[in-house]
Amino acid sequence: MRILILLTLAFASSGIWADDVAPATAESALSAVATLRDETNWLWTCIAGFLVFFMQAGFALVEAGFTRAKNTVNILMKNFMDFALGSLAYWLIGFAIMFGPQIISGIGFGSVSLADSLLIVDGKPDPSKFTFFIFQLVFAGTAATIVSGAMAERTKFVDYVIFSVLITAFVYPIFGSLAWSNLFNPDNKGYLVEAGFIDFAGSTVVHSVGGWAGLAGTIVLGPRIGKYQDGKVLPILGHNMTIAALGVFILWLGWFGFNPGSTTSVGGGTFAIIAVTTNFAAAAGAVSSMIVTWILFKKPDIGLTLNGALAGLVAITAPCANVSISSAIIIGLVGGVLVVFSVLFFDKIKVDDPVGAVSVHGVCGAWGTIAAGLFAEQAFGGVNGLFFGGGIDQLLVQLQGVGIGFVWAFGASLVIFLGLKFTIGLRVSEDEEIQGLDILEHGNEAYPISK
Amino acid sequence: MRILILLTLAFASSGIWADDVAPATAESALSAVATLRDETNWLWTCIAGFLVFFMQAGFALVEAGFTRAKNTVNILMKNFMDFALGSLAYWLIGFAIMFGPQIISGIGFGSVSLADSLLIVDGKPDPSKFTFFIFQLVFAGTAATIVSGAMAERTKFVDYVIFSVLITAFVYPIFGSLAWSNLFNPDNKGYLVEAGFIDFAGSTVVHSVGGWAGLAGTIVLGPRIGKYQDGKVLPILGHNMTIAALGVFILWLGWFGFNPGSTTSVGGGTFAIIAVTTNFAAAAGAVSSMIVTWILFKKPDIGLTLNGALAGLVAITAPCANVSISSAIIIGLVGGVLVVFSVLFFDKIKVDDPVGAVSVHGVCGAWGTIAAGLFAEQAFGGVNGLFFGGGIDQLLVQLQGVGIGFVWAFGASLVIFLGLKFTIGLRVSEDEEIQGLDILEHGNEAYPISK
Amino acid sequence: MRILILLTLAFASSGIWADDVAPATAESALSAVATLRDETNWLWTCIAGFLVFFMQAGFALVEAGFTRAKNTVNILMKNFMDFALGSLAYWLIGFAIMFGPQIISGIGFGSVSLADSLLIVDGKPDPSKFTFFIFQLVFAGTAATIVSGAMAERTKFVDYVIFSVLITAFVYPIFGSLAWSNLFNPDNKGYLVEAGFIDFAGSTVVHSVGGWAGLAGTIVLGPRIGKYQDGKVLPILGHNMTIAALGVFILWLGWFGFNPGSTTSVGGGTFAIIAVTTNFAAAAGAVSSMIVTWILFKKPDIGLTLNGALAGLVAITAPCANVSISSAIIIGLVGGVLVVFSVLFFDKIKVDDPVGAVSVHGVCGAWGTIAAGLFAEQAFGGVNGLFFGGGIDQLLVQLQGVGIGFVWAFGASLVIFLGLKFTIGLRVSEDEEIQGLDILEHGNEAYPISK
Repeated sequence: MRILILLTLAFASSGIWADDVAPATAESALSAVATLRDETNWLWTCIAGFLVFFMQAGFALVEAGFTRAKNTVNILMKNFMDFALGSLAYWLIGFAIMFGPQIISGIGFGSVSLADSLLIVDGKPDPSKFTFFIFQLVFAGTAATIVSGAMAERTKFVDYVIFSVLITAFVYPIFGSLAWSNLFNPDNKGYLVEAGFIDFAGSTVVHSVGGWAGLAGTIVLGPRIGKYQDGKVLPILGHNMTIAALGVFILWLGWFGFNPGSTTSVGGGTFAIIAVTTNFAAAAGAVSSMIVTWILFKKPDIGLTLNGALAGLVAITAPCANVSISSAIIIGLVGGVLVVFSVLFFDKIKVDDPVGAVSVHGVCGAWGTIAAGLFAEQAFGGVNGLFFGGGIDQLLVQLQGVGIGFVWAFGASLVIFLGLKFTIGLRVSEDEEIQGLDILEHGNEAYPISK
Repeated sequence: MRILILLTLAFASSGIWADDVAPATAESALSAVATLRDETNWLWTCIAGFLVFFMQAGFALVEAGFTRAKNTVNILMKNFMDFALGSLAYWLIGFAIMFGPQIISGIGFGSVSLADSLLIVDGKPDPSKFTFFIFQLVFAGTAATIVSGAMAERTKFVDYVIFSVLITAFVYPIFGSLAWSNLFNPDNKGYLVEAGFIDFAGSTVVHSVGGWAGLAGTIVLGPRIGKYQDGKVLPILGHNMTIAALGVFILWLGWFGFNPGSTTSVGGGTFAIIAVTTNFAAAAGAVSSMIVTWILFKKPDIGLTLNGALAGLVAITAPCANVSISSAIIIGLVGGVLVVFSVLFFDKIKVDDPVGAVSVHGVCGAWGTIAAGLFAEQAFGGVNGLFFGGGIDQLLVQLQGVGIGFVWAFGASLVIFLGLKFTIGLRVSEDEEIQGLDILEHGNEAYPISK
Repeated sequence: MRILILLTLAFASSGIWADDVAPATAESALSAVATLRDETNWLWTCIAGFLVFFMQAGFALVEAGFTRAKNTVNILMKNFMDFALGSLAYWLIGFAIMFGPQIISGIGFGSVSLADSLLIVDGKPDPSKFTFFIFQLVFAGTAATIVSGAMAERTKFVDYVIFSVLITAFVYPIFGSLAWSNLFNPDNKGYLVEAGFIDFAGSTVVHSVGGWAGLAGTIVLGPRIGKYQDGKVLPILGHNMTIAALGVFILWLGWFGFNPGSTTSVGGGTFAIIAVTTNFAAAAGAVSSMIVTWILFKKPDIGLTLNGALAGLVAITAPCANVSISSAIIIGLVGGVLVVFSVLFFDKIKVDDPVGAVSVHGVCGAWGTIAAGLFAEQAFGGVNGLFFGGGIDQLLVQLQGVGIGFVWAFGASLVIFLGLKFTIGLRVSEDEEIQGLDILEHGNEAYPISK
């Protein structure tokens, strides 16, 4: 403890305290403010990152709640390990691919991790870069964890573990570098950065990428036993709506880190505006999906209503910094409707996505990215989108980003999953699927009864 | 993303960065500090607001845990939708009623939402106002969600949805404007603001209002089938103490946003003092209710102990900024005792409140508001209350606020619930109540067993 | 509310606002920055403290999930009440012992008095001291709550209540004052402070102390009925892996307050570096324990994998501020392996610790404290540990701290538990243990089925 205090003193002395000794000047005061501003920005970014980390718990609960009790240990382990393994993979490889000046030159820096070569400056850890790194790390973890739900209840654990490493090391960061690579180093210009692509917090970069990877996975796997029989879609109900609802509350909370935190700065208070647009898209998504299910099924359905809020949140993620509250509500309302019909559509074409991850993250991520080209407003800090006199150019850029995101994430994941299928096998045996994955994959039960 | 960065630069240039170009002066340094202070205040208020938002999850879990499994989907949907719908209603109407300069003049501003006319200044979103708005919004959501528990297990979903909109649009903000309306605009002076009413974070404004609305609802509904038979009170046990306990932990956490965040400022570090008083009232409430149940029932009861912590939290909400730790402990101890006897009292007069919401929020909210007139101390930033040489004046003001709060919230809610009862009907059928609301209201079960 | 606003103005006027009136000088600007820096430090410390508070929920869920349904109310009540009672005890006695002016300097025993005597300065609450107090309070609560798991499923509730008071009032703060007493007042010099002991956030001070207290408790109690029969270790499975996993996610989140928040300052952004090392040790612990169970049991086990992440977190707590990411990963990897073999070892010697608390907190706390002497690096703000050219001196100091921590926490707790055993009795009756503690200790069930 003593040592840290000395360290803190040492750091602090570069800021305000040194000025107690040196004569006070306007320059030294401005420098002290600048130092505190940096530290406040890092603080906000880290706190936001902690909230985003907590989304891992939200995903785990939503996916566990929406699937059967016999596969719960498996779902929990997948959600737990994708972040643990993903952390290591992103540190070793992914971060440098996404933000490093050149991938190859990074390798020679004498470190086992490519990230270290970016984080350690003059032999010392750089707090601004560590801040950026932890924030980007939890984003990578989010993309990875989305896949878990779409492939639930029939995937071998070892395959999911391998894919988690590959998506955080390669699939996610390669597209991320196209769209966001100037964030760390202004000289890095990904293709979509140059084009002016708006994806503020990652409707496409994080959510669609995760969703399309899940789509590839569920297609390669095929549907669960008993889901589609005699031309009918048979419901396979999740086992616990209480934890699913808790999961959605946690995700909503986490999104207050995800979107507002993507400012990585307190400058201008933009984070507050984003918090509001984020909240209203979520609220609107919940309302519209509830109404749609009420009309379609005569009763307000809990599962789709919960997914409606997530649909609104995913959709507002790209445009959150550039739209008004009214636009955020429209974006959320459309997301909430879209997710219901998307879930019904994928069931119709027999793509079995147990938790609706492809619809929520893939489809609504695409919608949100397009919406940025429609609803962005100069008054809210963006270019003008189509509906605010901005012409069709921005919309075309958005469509381009959506298209490249789909081709890359779906394509790369398809290759990986096919590779796994034809080598170690991707799907558990029929017996295991019927008995549940918990016993045979883990030797555990989620809810044992022990006397 | 690029656009946001440009935006951030633009905002920031009004603060410190512009001074790199302009000559450094003491004035520019002071202005840079003032800008960072504003941003830090907004940051704290937003983070506190996120914690208050998370209380929605806490309420959902407490209410679900304290009621039966057959009504769990219904409780979850109520807690989820009251915030979603309440957000929209508060934006459309409630916020402008509570804080707008005049209600009527606000309507003409060419926006579908009354709030927008207060939030957008010179055609641009004002971050200080967005910050204030999101913080007030989550408070309105809290008042709404309290009602859900008191009316659990027998209310039609559609009625609850309608009431959620009405409380956030009208019932809550009208009383709120009496007590807090100077917060947004110093020229707005609600009657209780003028009188010097102390309700720092809303023991009355939020909690009692929610509690008394719930009391009106449960009286109009009547007790659940089987609760009172042959002059006896029969226990109807909740189905999951684990999630109820988790809910209380989440609420306790959320209260660290609710009370300390009501400073909406880091100035003077008052938030830290409030965090301490808040924690000690909660701890004391848990301890005293545990002891009372241990004496009454010979065993320490979990349900009432959990409610005891909430009682302490509700009670400290009004006086939290103006009392010492010792006083906070006394306020919490009394709250913890009060809630046990209040729960027993309401059962005695056959007012069936399944989760104790009226006792926790209504009764202990009143107690806390009165306690502010007893325990406030100048040394802790308040006037002196009765026990610290302050005379009876402040106490009378507190009693007036409690009284007006009761008359308004109970009266207005009674009118609404009676109106609903005699039009579309407020209570589900006897058959539905016995079978559980989940199937007939939602077509869902909370814990399905699917093979 | 009005009163608080006046208060805020009054406080604020000592900072920036007064300078609007006084002539702007470089000194006044520097003073304004210094005020805002203080407030920002307090804000960060309080927010971190809120996250640490939330760890109480994490511990409650982990312990409830890893034990049987018939003892769930008991576990929840223990986890709830140890913080409530611990708050009061730490305020009444513990805080002053830990940080008060030392009666016997060196040995570490401060004044026995109300915390108030340290918190109220010149008749007014000091926000910097309130900030420090709430942060230390939630740490004391953590040490107390660890014990609950080790003694689960067979301890009388009243004994646990008494022990909770004693550990927060005496056991924890006396060792804490040896290691950390200088934090509040630089003139306080505990023996280990003088020796240069590194335990940044409490691998030993908090976790080992809690773990060794639990070890004493479980030894005095003896194993649960049916755990060790005919030379075999029979599994007694926990009842809910979903809530256990949620508990670990919450603990991981809370640790972002525990370790980074122990800076109690934003100065230099050290918190960001600590957030990264903390995360990587957790991730590495989860990975290595998963791999070890996969090898040992042929399947990746959920319970030990979850404990592996906790092992990594406990281990990094001492060295988190002074090691590189690579070292953090090694420390976590070792922790994850260690916890598995430690759990097997304690079962082998028939020490029955239902949730693995002794292994996670005691053993891995010791490992982490030793690791600080091995992996600390000057570049990361520490002295150099053995592996970075630092010689054996620091390692010997670390071993000394580990040893004193064990002797004190185990010894003092053993005395207390033996005292309780031979007076009021420590263990429930055989009948009660078989029937479950919930009914006989609390008159409650965790999961009642009410029609």
